[in-house]
Amino acid sequence: MASIFTKIIKREIPAEIIAEDENFISFLDIMPLVKGHVLVVPKKEVDYIFNMEPEDLAGLHLFAQKVAKAMDKTIKCTRIGVAVIGLEVPHVHIHLVPLRTMDDINFTRPKLKLTSEELADIADMIRGGF
Amino acid sequence: MASIFTKIIKREIPAEIIAEDENFISFLDIMPLVKGHVLVVPKKEVDYIFNMEPEDLAGLHLFAQKVAKAMDKTIKCTRIGVAVIGLEVPHVHIHLVPLRTMDDINFTRPKLKLTSEELADIADMIRGGF
Repeated sequence: MASIFTKIIKREIPAEIIAEDENFISFLDIMPLVKGHVLVVPKKEVDYIFNMEPEDLAGLHLFAQKVAKAMDKTIKCTRIGVAVIGLEVPHVHIHLVPLRTMDDINFTRPKLKLTSEELADIADMIRGGF
Repeated sequence: MASIFTKIIKREIPAEIIAEDENFISFLDIMPLVKGHVLVVPKKEVDYIFNMEPEDLAGLHLFAQKVAKAMDKTIKCTRIGVAVIGLEVPHVHIHLVPLRTMDDINFTRPKLKLTSEELADIADMIRGGF
């Protein structure tokens, strides 16, 4: 069965897409730790990041770097943190999380609930950073 | 002033080194979240991961992949998680953390205190995975 991320890639599920190329896509996490929490995902559905082909892994991180730079330009934060956990959705995803404190990237705390208008505004802002 | 990681690279401070090449080094975190928590560091001292040259960033993640594969072979865990926070030591470091639960990669919880013998044993085990 297609992962939820593949459904986003195929436009079967809506998402606030931040950037996309032939191999990778980036969109807002709808259960964000903080405002501006973004996911970066390879279009090829692989469960575990370290099982990716080295070339694909390098490409994913270079794509993430471009997204992070746009986030740094547009979101008020100390820096962009990175996390790859992978205990839930079985499709590789890098979390890019605007950080002010360590707790901003603590995945055990409650997620924010943002309206679709709030998510749209945040996505517009980040897209403006490219 | 040289970062604590540069001092490790120069062998001015001891560490349980897991792997090393011309550009990158990996060693055990001495304040681990869980047993087998490893850091992967570029030898060139850069503060913020997204300020790295793309080629260096890709190289760092490919080096980390090799270390993570050795960890997967030798440490009992579900998978290896990745985090880059960077609010403390101003020298890029990727955390590779053996995960069983989300809380294993929660940086707000107390760190483990391991003896130098325990650290040496864990490092030996991981080095056996290459």
